[in-house]
Amino acid sequence: MVATGAHGEIITDIVDRTRARKISLQSVDRRRLDDMATNHQGVIAEVAPYVYASLEEIIVATRDTPALPLVLVLDVLQDPQNLGSLLRTAAAAGAQGVVILEHRAVGVTPAVMKAASGAIEQLKIAQVGNISHAIDALKEAGLWAVGLDARADERYDQFDLKRPLALVVGGEGKGLRPLVRQHCDVVVSLPMPGQIESLNAAVAGSIVIYEALRQRTAVQGSELGVQS
Amino acid sequence: MVATGAHGEIITDIVDRTRARKISLQSVDRRRLDDMATNHQGVIAEVAPYVYASLEEIIVATRDTPALPLVLVLDVLQDPQNLGSLLRTAAAAGAQGVVILEHRAVGVTPAVMKAASGAIEQLKIAQVGNISHAIDALKEAGLWAVGLDARADERYDQFDLKRPLALVVGGEGKGLRPLVRQHCDVVVSLPMPGQIESLNAAVAGSIVIYEALRQRTAVQGSELGVQS
Repeated sequence: MVATGAHGEIITDIVDRTRARKISLQSVDRRRLDDMATNHQGVIAEVAPYVYASLEEIIVATRDTPALPLVLVLDVLQDPQNLGSLLRTAAAAGAQGVVILEHRAVGVTPAVMKAASGAIEQLKIAQVGNISHAIDALKEAGLWAVGLDARADERYDQFDLKRPLALVVGGEGKGLRPLVRQHCDVVVSLPMPGQIESLNAAVAGSIVIYEALRQRTAVQGSELGVQS
Repeated sequence: MVATGAHGEIITDIVDRTRARKISLQSVDRRRLDDMATNHQGVIAEVAPYVYASLEEIIVATRDTPALPLVLVLDVLQDPQNLGSLLRTAAAAGAQGVVILEHRAVGVTPAVMKAASGAIEQLKIAQVGNISHAIDALKEAGLWAVGLDARADERYDQFDLKRPLALVVGGEGKGLRPLVRQHCDVVVSLPMPGQIESLNAAVAGSIVIYEALRQRTAVQGSELGVQS
């Protein structure tokens, strides 16, 4: 739906592409768009609800990849911007999939899609009723379940992440729930020399995803961490 | 201001602490709080506006620290949650200060303070009119200006960050402005094996902050990146 009178290069581009793909296009009164969204810039697209993958499909994808498997598991994440940012990082790092909790956690909503900025199409996302069961299934498929926990003794960067990996990240505020932590093979923490109790959940998860990527792609012997 | 009739453990705790510190306390009609904030949970505190540090104070702090200096410089960051997350990461990593842009960028607003979750008190934050001038001043003070740019050839983890560091991070969408990039000593990028163009700005900046911390605290020779 394009507001009557909306114009400009971007609008022309959207109209052209929509026609080229034979997608139904309507010219509607701007007030109708106002009723549907607070910030629409003259165009609204109606899309089908997000179709989740199954956990089994993600496991199959970890078997099919030539790379070392990487699956992100999110326990009770509630903020759409955090979920969107984590999906974006997981997709950028080439993860095979992301597992999220079905209840009491945010799903793939329009706000999440916006924050993920195109990452949704690159990823398999499975919604599960029980995170601990999902972790067990990923472990059975040969992945190591590594949980991120602020109280863990082992540092995230001193653990070898060059193995098939299910990285388990907790929600805002409380982190991993105790039962979920128990299902992990190991828990690691981020050092915080400053007087801060925790990082933003999306930031913390993303740092560990990129540490896994760094370890996996580090050039043998040219590693700066050991020079000078 | 506490809403008349508001009660519970947290309210009691707030009232007790407020009295102990001799802070003025008022019991007001809940509707008055409704007029001031959409989500107040029965209590609102009135605080003085945030007092910024000067760039000079941050430079002095980099001279006084026994650690390797780390200053975060943010170019045109506009999202309060992103700024809050970055302040939180900078504080957790023990940075001496954060430099932000005065116009066309978000300042230290209540939304930023909330997202920063206590980090504001741990950091010196300076607001400057010109980021390039600030970078020059930090370079004159002996810091290396390392910019984060998605198009840079050098990988962030292959550059030696074990030196006095001013890490320059761009805003949402466009990254570093060309002139700001030119003022950096070097620009580095994050690898993205997945089909994604960029990461969330707070995530990208935080990953590089933690890579600096990792390199600076890596145990000599026990570095996992070069084993196996």
